[in-house]
Amino acid sequence: MRTAKKTIKKVSLIGLGQMGRKMARMYIDAGYEVTLWNRTLEKTREFEDVNITESAQDAIARSPFVIICVYDNSATLDILNNLADQGVLEGKTIVNLTTGGPDEALEIEKIVSAQKGNYINGAIQVAPDQMGKESTTILLSGNKKAYDEHRSTFDILGGNLKFLGEKAAASSAMDLATLTWLYGSYIGLIYGVSLGQKYGLDLEDYSRIIGEITPGFTEFFQYEIDVINRGDYSITQSPLPISIAATQRIADSFKELNVLREFPEAIKNILEQAGEKGLGNEELAAIIKVINKQV
Amino acid sequence: MRTAKKTIKKVSLIGLGQMGRKMARMYIDAGYEVTLWNRTLEKTREFEDVNITESAQDAIARSPFVIICVYDNSATLDILNNLADQGVLEGKTIVNLTTGGPDEALEIEKIVSAQKGNYINGAIQVAPDQMGKESTTILLSGNKKAYDEHRSTFDILGGNLKFLGEKAAASSAMDLATLTWLYGSYIGLIYGVSLGQKYGLDLEDYSRIIGEITPGFTEFFQYEIDVINRGDYSITQSPLPISIAATQRIADSFKELNVLREFPEAIKNILEQAGEKGLGNEELAAIIKVINKQV
Repeated sequence: MRTAKKTIKKVSLIGLGQMGRKMARMYIDAGYEVTLWNRTLEKTREFEDVNITESAQDAIARSPFVIICVYDNSATLDILNNLADQGVLEGKTIVNLTTGGPDEALEIEKIVSAQKGNYINGAIQVAPDQMGKESTTILLSGNKKAYDEHRSTFDILGGNLKFLGEKAAASSAMDLATLTWLYGSYIGLIYGVSLGQKYGLDLEDYSRIIGEITPGFTEFFQYEIDVINRGDYSITQSPLPISIAATQRIADSFKELNVLREFPEAIKNILEQAGEKGLGNEELAAIIKVINKQV
Repeated sequence: MRTAKKTIKKVSLIGLGQMGRKMARMYIDAGYEVTLWNRTLEKTREFEDVNITESAQDAIARSPFVIICVYDNSATLDILNNLADQGVLEGKTIVNLTTGGPDEALEIEKIVSAQKGNYINGAIQVAPDQMGKESTTILLSGNKKAYDEHRSTFDILGGNLKFLGEKAAASSAMDLATLTWLYGSYIGLIYGVSLGQKYGLDLEDYSRIIGEITPGFTEFFQYEIDVINRGDYSITQSPLPISIAATQRIADSFKELNVLREFPEAIKNILEQAGEKGLGNEELAAIIKVINKQV
């Protein structure tokens, strides 16, 4: 009797922002019994054939597998701290896909573990539109046993799951590291648009060229990470002085524009310091020493 | 008689840095008669079966197609201004692949055009190792007639030539715009490494994940450029408040580290200002308004 019952796969979702709604749809489409809770009821109305609960407590009670994806981890902590009975977490697999810092992940892990729940912390590395694809990258870390047990339920979310080990904070830390790259890249891109506007460039050309040169530069980036990992800064790909000159030129060209200049100036200053600290005969990656104040 | 002579393709290269040497090899391998000049003779010694000249003047005189690829455009200007007889430029196609700003490109164009030479300004978008591939992107602009005439000689350098129009400065401007993206991306990447080191992350994991998530984010970047191009900042992919929180979190995590903080702080400040200026209900791309001081 129990066996038949077990075949109905259940998932509860807490939080129905753009990402939460997308995941709800994916589980509905995959034939799961889906239970939803959101702080405001309105966002639950677009869903049919799901259980809508009136509290996070009820949502957690309904399924062995619970995804939390809310605005930030202080919202996650609010929800968990205000459960009428935290005992409901016992034996549940709580998957927190809310973006947040590693310290918050540790704090959430403590609450779940104190109730003998299984905590898995995660960070989605794509936009809602890109969920569920073969290439969809999701970082996960925490309770490995629960991860293995619910692997098929995780697999619905994306084809490139990265389990980074038992330390729940690891996925948040990795997320922070990839986001740091992402925002540097994004803001650099938008500054590039600003220059493009100044010089009357076709932004569609800019967009196309960025797309075309990215794969080559990604290889270069990976090479540079490897340089840091090996600690051998001999010049092979990119001598630092070329970048000192280039970032100086970039910063100079913004001087003539009425723009916020902190970003290009910060980049220029890092490179300039690298030159002043005698790294001129090293590979560009040696700027890690300047950033980390090791020189 | 003249016809037979014309079939020997000739190219002169001025400047034998890493990129110049690579290009020299490519033309030698392609069966060109190659003439080289470098400020110091030493770098010419690795080449056999080429003409080595004692002056830039002689190098230019030897071939109808001359590539200049030196340290920076003030070096290019030095070379052109110090020719014994600038008249040697007449009828020559001078291709300057030295990295430099658009204003310098204009200045060089003037010198070459004054002598009735054909000027093409260019910017190589890849590292020396990546030259000559199908995907090798090189930006070019200037004399279209000369470009068409020497197309097969250009084609040796790479499979993805982008001719951006008759304004010689356009390729330098586009180069500046793509470099702005590149350095934001690169420095963001190295800051990510710094965080990874703090949290004991495996840098090989970081490298692999960056490689895996890049194609998705490139699509996202292209979408965001299109948002700016269309001027419609309605939220579809990335609401600005999520990024305000994320960049705040990134900046906070660097506060605890003994690092140069200007870069993450500059990013945080841009996003923070976007929030303060009432862009909270817009797509992330709306930060262009903050950068350009339009709000």
